[in-house]
Amino acid sequence: MQLPQGFRFAGVRCGIKAKADRKDLTLVVGDRDLVAAGVYTQNKIVAAPVVLSRSRTPSSAVRAVVINSGNANACTGQQGDRDALAMTNLVAKACELDPSSVLVMSTGIIGHKLPMDRIEQGIQSAADQLNDSSDNFLAAADGILTTDQGRKLAFRCEQIGDQKITFAAMAKGAGMIGPNMATMLGLVLCDANLSKIDAQRALRVAADASFNSISVDGHTSTNDTVNLLCSGTASATPLSEEHLARFTEVLTDFCIELAKQIPADGEGAHHVIEIRVGGADCDADAKQIAKSIADSPLVKTAVTGNDPNWGRIMSAAGYAGVLVRPELCQLKINGSMVFDKGQPIDFDEKAISESMAADRTVVLQVTVGDGPGTSVFWTSDLTTDYVTFNSDYST
Amino acid sequence: MQLPQGFRFAGVRCGIKAKADRKDLTLVVGDRDLVAAGVYTQNKIVAAPVVLSRSRTPSSAVRAVVINSGNANACTGQQGDRDALAMTNLVAKACELDPSSVLVMSTGIIGHKLPMDRIEQGIQSAADQLNDSSDNFLAAADGILTTDQGRKLAFRCEQIGDQKITFAAMAKGAGMIGPNMATMLGLVLCDANLSKIDAQRALRVAADASFNSISVDGHTSTNDTVNLLCSGTASATPLSEEHLARFTEVLTDFCIELAKQIPADGEGAHHVIEIRVGGADCDADAKQIAKSIADSPLVKTAVTGNDPNWGRIMSAAGYAGVLVRPELCQLKINGSMVFDKGQPIDFDEKAISESMAADRTVVLQVTVGDGPGTSVFWTSDLTTDYVTFNSDYST
Repeated sequence: MQLPQGFRFAGVRCGIKAKADRKDLTLVVGDRDLVAAGVYTQNKIVAAPVVLSRSRTPSSAVRAVVINSGNANACTGQQGDRDALAMTNLVAKACELDPSSVLVMSTGIIGHKLPMDRIEQGIQSAADQLNDSSDNFLAAADGILTTDQGRKLAFRCEQIGDQKITFAAMAKGAGMIGPNMATMLGLVLCDANLSKIDAQRALRVAADASFNSISVDGHTSTNDTVNLLCSGTASATPLSEEHLARFTEVLTDFCIELAKQIPADGEGAHHVIEIRVGGADCDADAKQIAKSIADSPLVKTAVTGNDPNWGRIMSAAGYAGVLVRPELCQLKINGSMVFDKGQPIDFDEKAISESMAADRTVVLQVTVGDGPGTSVFWTSDLTTDYVTFNSDYST
Repeated sequence: MQLPQGFRFAGVRCGIKAKADRKDLTLVVGDRDLVAAGVYTQNKIVAAPVVLSRSRTPSSAVRAVVINSGNANACTGQQGDRDALAMTNLVAKACELDPSSVLVMSTGIIGHKLPMDRIEQGIQSAADQLNDSSDNFLAAADGILTTDQGRKLAFRCEQIGDQKITFAAMAKGAGMIGPNMATMLGLVLCDANLSKIDAQRALRVAADASFNSISVDGHTSTNDTVNLLCSGTASATPLSEEHLARFTEVLTDFCIELAKQIPADGEGAHHVIEIRVGGADCDADAKQIAKSIADSPLVKTAVTGNDPNWGRIMSAAGYAGVLVRPELCQLKINGSMVFDKGQPIDFDEKAISESMAADRTVVLQVTVGDGPGTSVFWTSDLTTDYVTFNSDYST
């Protein structure tokens, strides 16, 4: 595990979560000022930490991010705003930083006030433990999880221009996942040297093709946040225009690697569904069609049952609200054609069903016309385990 | 059971459905020309019968509607178009009518060609049995069902001006229910005397507050159709402008009575969820918020678990994409306030959970601001039975 230079990490348990063995507070601190970019939920009901962090990015003077899990600090009124601010102030005090240089994220149940006494202890304890070891990085990745079955991590090294850039990232998310700018918590760290505006632009592009192209249940949460933090230690000079394009490509691909881990760990999921839409009038139309298919409970349950019930897929494409040319429509399931030029065709239902059962990923390739628009989207199927789990979450 | 005059009915089994005791073909014939209005799916992938019936309404010269269940005749290409036309031609021949005076609906699995030999026999058999009895009306209501657990019917008499108007209606739908103009099959019969344009206007208003305000799984089908047929026998003269407004009111209320039976019979449903949104900028915004709440699997599963997990409800209101003023937001579950002016408030979680468990209908009242926009929407909860049922439907 290679980590970018310029960061220290800690993940501790302070007692927000009920289960005694779960970490619930994470702290990441830069050795010097970090360039920071952010994408945040488009939900109109916004959690207090999102409001605060949004006001502090993009920035070229961020020093730390504090994240608690187990409580979303959402729908908590003015007390919630005060608590989010207090979290950043506590980090500033414990680490001797400018209070406005600290970002904050929260995730967990909505509508409960934060246990600030525990959080205060947790922040102090995390500050005491900060270091740049792999163990601490993993502890930090643990501290942000909620219903996730395991850590979501990605690592990469890439030479771009004169910069050998090292990326490391952590994410959380398994339910309440619906794409709208950002759809979970994610923290992407690297040592690239670039401006805050360039970092923000690159993150927007990357998020659109990754975190905004996944769903579990189509429910955009109040707390979605992805922050990109760049320590700049890879080079003394910023990336050139030409190399920024390459940086954005690499960041996008890296974010896709991280984002795909979320539907793969979708609550109760048996399958990941990869939806490839082509032939739309533009990419945005293709994405709307892909999202419509991804959000259909009938498509999801058909995949759960390894059932090539393709009519549900074409029907969901049809109600996405954008242009679809039925006479040009085509659908392949795991590579096998089941519908072509608007006509049903003979196919081996049993063979396709077996191929669905054999693989955790099911690929749906939908052509909706002859336009240039394409999109790739990932979601999970819908199982009785999802329903059972979410029928009994807070009570 | 009082039926409007001027109609004859039949419902038969012709062998489209697998189960031997299920009727699958319905015929309704007017004694003379009927005024007919229609609202149809907004899905871009449209079934052949929808294309044909849409081209024939509104009309003042409709004589019959033929409906088959068990096969949707959707995604069936040009053969599907020919088969839909053939169904209306077969009815015209069997009943000695103008072929263009016949409407057609189909419902059932997508992407399979109609068994036209069976349908031909069924149409002949139905034509032979036509009469105006209650038994035949009920047989007709049986012939349109698919996964429904029982008939969906509504009856009403209302004096409007000089017309004593009798309404009778049948509907089907339990899954693939998502509101977009019309969301299932419905046939509303009455003996009112009014013009085709007035009938179409009244049906549009009524459908918007009824069939377009329900969902089960948010999946708008390829075959949604509601037709209103008026025999005109209630009066020799058409309804006046003033009385048309009253007719629209009565029709709207009547359609709501019918439409609510659909989420009540939602596949696997334990609860009906009635969502009342107020304080939005306009009615359309309120409806968008109500639909966002209705379509959230997290809201649905919370209701399944009798869990007043109100954060999920406010979060779904927030991502509807229209204006919400968090500081004015309020939420009541079954009449009990749980969130007020953007602040969580203390409430008796156990008492609300018990009230949810005690009643099949759960009422969510959401205020999102101080605007005039309101909406009422009905959906079903999401249970493991829905998932099990839909994981094993076609194979």
